[in-house]
Amino acid sequence: MHNNRFLRALAGKPVDATPIWIMRQAGRYLPEYRALRSRVSGFMELCSTPELACEVTLQPLNRFDLDAAIIFSDILTIPDAMGLGLHFVEGEGPKFEFPIRHSHQIDRLTAPDPETDLGYVMDAIRLVRGSLGERIPLIGFAGSPWTLASYMIEGQSPGDFRQAKSLLLEAPETLHRLLEVLTQSVTSYLVAQVGAGAQALMIFDTWGGVLSERTYLEFSLKYIKTILDNLSNESISQSTPVIVFTKGGGQWLPEIINCGCAGIGLDWTVNLTKARDTVAGRCALQGNMDPCTLYANPECIRQEVARILKAYGPGSGHIFNLGHGIQPQVNPEHVNVLVDAVHQLSLPYHR
Amino acid sequence: MHNNRFLRALAGKPVDATPIWIMRQAGRYLPEYRALRSRVSGFMELCSTPELACEVTLQPLNRFDLDAAIIFSDILTIPDAMGLGLHFVEGEGPKFEFPIRHSHQIDRLTAPDPETDLGYVMDAIRLVRGSLGERIPLIGFAGSPWTLASYMIEGQSPGDFRQAKSLLLEAPETLHRLLEVLTQSVTSYLVAQVGAGAQALMIFDTWGGVLSERTYLEFSLKYIKTILDNLSNESISQSTPVIVFTKGGGQWLPEIINCGCAGIGLDWTVNLTKARDTVAGRCALQGNMDPCTLYANPECIRQEVARILKAYGPGSGHIFNLGHGIQPQVNPEHVNVLVDAVHQLSLPYHR
Repeated sequence: MHNNRFLRALAGKPVDATPIWIMRQAGRYLPEYRALRSRVSGFMELCSTPELACEVTLQPLNRFDLDAAIIFSDILTIPDAMGLGLHFVEGEGPKFEFPIRHSHQIDRLTAPDPETDLGYVMDAIRLVRGSLGERIPLIGFAGSPWTLASYMIEGQSPGDFRQAKSLLLEAPETLHRLLEVLTQSVTSYLVAQVGAGAQALMIFDTWGGVLSERTYLEFSLKYIKTILDNLSNESISQSTPVIVFTKGGGQWLPEIINCGCAGIGLDWTVNLTKARDTVAGRCALQGNMDPCTLYANPECIRQEVARILKAYGPGSGHIFNLGHGIQPQVNPEHVNVLVDAVHQLSLPYHR
Repeated sequence: MHNNRFLRALAGKPVDATPIWIMRQAGRYLPEYRALRSRVSGFMELCSTPELACEVTLQPLNRFDLDAAIIFSDILTIPDAMGLGLHFVEGEGPKFEFPIRHSHQIDRLTAPDPETDLGYVMDAIRLVRGSLGERIPLIGFAGSPWTLASYMIEGQSPGDFRQAKSLLLEAPETLHRLLEVLTQSVTSYLVAQVGAGAQALMIFDTWGGVLSERTYLEFSLKYIKTILDNLSNESISQSTPVIVFTKGGGQWLPEIINCGCAGIGLDWTVNLTKARDTVAGRCALQGNMDPCTLYANPECIRQEVARILKAYGPGSGHIFNLGHGIQPQVNPEHVNVLVDAVHQLSLPYHR
């Protein structure tokens, strides 16, 4: 690998500079993304056409000195492949034509076959790996079972989680059945991504942070751990590191450490110094700049980079990232400032 | 006081049962509120007409066996009195006609005089106290300076806080000037509420949890502490307990304990057992049921009450509440279930 800072940092091995990639680095803040998006019928056409997904994946790498690529896709490809009919309404986000409304719908769900039902994702990964060669590693990803279940039950971006949380309280065993089929689906999906060429994996638990500690442990982290166990049993996670990111999960870091992941994503509310103390070398940490920082001027961005690098302190085990996806209104020039600042200002911490 | 469970629990003194009140207990989930609301021109007419604000404040007390009343008002009365022109757009929440766009606007802001500029709140408090007599205590409240500043800068409910956080990073001294005048405003507003008859106070830091730890401490908690210090200097907080509630602030509990408050509000992500260990008798704790619990059936509501009471454990120092305001779609009968469950199921913890 030409640039293996990302994988080395994830393994806690020495690096020359702190690696950085950015959640949603291929996305709407890039004019070349918007240009391509305007020529297709919808967001899902970009995801489901391997050549287009590959092109979008590579766009940010042509502009910025990023240390990892992440396959351009969406966490909702799994429920779509299960037959829920995913579509995106402009300005309103994802919608399902057939959300989960009755428990008998859950009984009929089966885990999609990754190569036949989600082959477009695997093809896109193969194309990206062909283009990237040994330049930088490629990250594959999936949503956590709880996060996917929330969307499937609510039928859209889950406002106050009325239906998902009602099911959790009133019929927990029904929700567990849904989470089990999703756990199986995410496992085989991630295994297939590794088979297609993904060199690291990330599990996005976007909605874990809306739960209480008890329900987070029982309905979200438990299933993430099962996925990690499955990957370990298939000898995947030993060679392909997995990052787990529960947005809003800062209070549960001591529990997340034990799920078997190589790295933990942190949002910006977490004190990185304390988080490093808590993980005590057992995991790498990824994050944790507030995405809003990129709205500020370059000098402020550099100051914030310096603060975060200082908070982590000397040595490896830190992957710089935002604490959530980059906002569509961000000036791409500010991303250049960020990436360069991380590489330059981190040098003294790796001598 | 006929029922002084709330004030006793806040002081850590023995009670016969755990007290409960509910954030936004006077609100849209009540048909009698919607009926009254439909007869006036807007939300602000309810707030600014003392007889109506009094009537709304008393509505939930006529239905439920609540242990405290909270004056019906809005945290944005202060910026409105500062001249920002508050209005409410149906379905969109609060808007300011004149949001803060330039630093010279901040230079011209002065703290409102509570008795002249916000006299309608004081009159409403006096009316409620007249009606309540010694039945249950009345809580006064204000927004935290950071929360008020966010709304004033964004001009509305602050989406991703783009403008407020940009100001924070690019011109922190300007933001500090705004926070200072708001601190002065909140102090005199709360002092006046106590003068009018409020028997406890609550500071709502609704948006503290969107900050990083560093910025929360510097831009939110610091000013909350100044308000508490001011109230202490005026000998208010010694006799009138203050509850501080930072939504999403669970990670910063050790810091919040030291701000001088009598009680800390907790959202539902916080483990109440650990929180009690952390505060170690220095503060009372208020919360922490997920408001979505009230969507579930009565049996689930009772189970969740039992879990939270057990998590706190035996003894005083806990005020039951939701971890956020009650949702407008909740069935009022479920609130009855909740209130009765708290009183009944908590008896064994207070023997």
